[in-house]
Amino acid sequence: MLAQFVYFSDLLGCIVFAISGVLVAGRLKMDPIGVVVLASVTAIGGGTIRDMAIGATPVFWINDTTYLYVIFATALISMLTARKAHRLPSFLLPVLDAFGLALFTVIGAEKVLSYELPSVVAIVMGVITGVAGGMIRDVLAGQIPFVLQKEIYATASILGGVLYTVSLSLGLDDGWALGIAMAGTLGLRLAALRWHLSLPVFNLRR
Amino acid sequence: MLAQFVYFSDLLGCIVFAISGVLVAGRLKMDPIGVVVLASVTAIGGGTIRDMAIGATPVFWINDTTYLYVIFATALISMLTARKAHRLPSFLLPVLDAFGLALFTVIGAEKVLSYELPSVVAIVMGVITGVAGGMIRDVLAGQIPFVLQKEIYATASILGGVLYTVSLSLGLDDGWALGIAMAGTLGLRLAALRWHLSLPVFNLRR
Amino acid sequence: MLAQFVYFSDLLGCIVFAISGVLVAGRLKMDPIGVVVLASVTAIGGGTIRDMAIGATPVFWINDTTYLYVIFATALISMLTARKAHRLPSFLLPVLDAFGLALFTVIGAEKVLSYELPSVVAIVMGVITGVAGGMIRDVLAGQIPFVLQKEIYATASILGGVLYTVSLSLGLDDGWALGIAMAGTLGLRLAALRWHLSLPVFNLRR
Repeated sequence: MLAQFVYFSDLLGCIVFAISGVLVAGRLKMDPIGVVVLASVTAIGGGTIRDMAIGATPVFWINDTTYLYVIFATALISMLTARKAHRLPSFLLPVLDAFGLALFTVIGAEKVLSYELPSVVAIVMGVITGVAGGMIRDVLAGQIPFVLQKEIYATASILGGVLYTVSLSLGLDDGWALGIAMAGTLGLRLAALRWHLSLPVFNLRR
Repeated sequence: MLAQFVYFSDLLGCIVFAISGVLVAGRLKMDPIGVVVLASVTAIGGGTIRDMAIGATPVFWINDTTYLYVIFATALISMLTARKAHRLPSFLLPVLDAFGLALFTVIGAEKVLSYELPSVVAIVMGVITGVAGGMIRDVLAGQIPFVLQKEIYATASILGGVLYTVSLSLGLDDGWALGIAMAGTLGLRLAALRWHLSLPVFNLRR
Repeated sequence: MLAQFVYFSDLLGCIVFAISGVLVAGRLKMDPIGVVVLASVTAIGGGTIRDMAIGATPVFWINDTTYLYVIFATALISMLTARKAHRLPSFLLPVLDAFGLALFTVIGAEKVLSYELPSVVAIVMGVITGVAGGMIRDVLAGQIPFVLQKEIYATASILGGVLYTVSLSLGLDDGWALGIAMAGTLGLRLAALRWHLSLPVFNLRR
């Protein structure tokens, strides 16, 4: 049950992240193949780096090609319907994206722990799973990755990773730890969006 | 025989891709080491990502260092002769590049299939082998990768990967599949160059 | 004894490279998490690519999390004290950076040789260990990596790798080879800084 919920949420996270890649590609007037590439790196880039670093190869989307088909279908449908997207409520995509971030973080941390690696590695890999795909998307689009700048995004992912590993080490079962961690990431990210919270910037410019 | 043809063509593909790295470096006034770095990432960057993702490590150019020597020699000779390059017919480099793309695609797909992975992974990895090196080259040069924009380049690589896997699944032997796939990629890429074909762009800019 | 010297020097190299990431982040007004990300990729990016390419996974900082803690502490302390950094002598950071480059080069080459891989791979991986982290830092900061341009930096790393592998193949023991290689890289890099040496650029711009 929990495993199924996590799996389908993971695919939902891929869909949301792929859409964010499609939107960046559309602003840069890319061709359809460029759109698919940007959708793919955003959706699976972080998990790919995680798997390559911990030696979990072939990486996850090679072992389960459902991810690829979901991303291709998302890119196709997004391109066909993007012009009508303004009819969707404007809060929908940021909320789904926060959900994707929360889930990717926990899934990344969980996979690392299943390899019996230390908690700090799980937290770091949770962040990489959650934010590295978006960073590659931004670099390919010629932009400085927005997560490095002032929005609370990676910070929310770190909070989720910390809550997840601490919950498990306190003896909570996986379902509770997952729920607490996702609530933390989602809550902080949505609060940051709602009240425009940000960390103070570190400024060395004169 | 076929294996030898593929191996020497692979080295030829590296030479052509390395030259394209040298040309970008020269436009940015890099120093000779920067030229070698850009030549190398263009020539072997795609295959390196492929091998790391499928777990075929050490990656191919570690197991066979001929690739490195060929790239270093190409960069050196290119730098020494670049000023005279205008004497070469202007169609030569794009045609060789299309040939390199066609061959890298098939080699990437073939390697993935030899690990008994699914066809869709072979097609995706064929594209990565063919185009990711050039994407890294462009990012290092401070540009948005041109394959994401309107030229038919990655598209030709995808066509080759599809033709290759379909041919094999229809029972054709490897030589025929390779020939059909390369003809498809080469033909589409050269047609795109000749008649300035491109896919319609996906434009979300207002 | 030698192993301990190398290990603590490696951590010192991480500290210096992390500081260079912090400084770039500060110029771009990143938030504290962005600062930590940039410090981390600069310090461990090169070694991570090396380990993924040779198949030494999980990569080094997963097996020994001391690296992560050292980088996090460095980023934190650097942010808190950066405003007072102008009191340090201005030559300190470039000299420490040259020391880090020299050491990362030798450590990268040594690790590759311990996997019984050829000398040319050791030299290439020494350069990747020494300079790739800084290249990723520059790309994430929206800049063309400075090592590709005219400073003698990667060149000093190559010299160190060549001296190290040649010394070993001449039968010198590891301590001597390490000392000779580090002296070569350090000497060339410091000379380049002191007398503004650079290689002639390769310029194809009209």
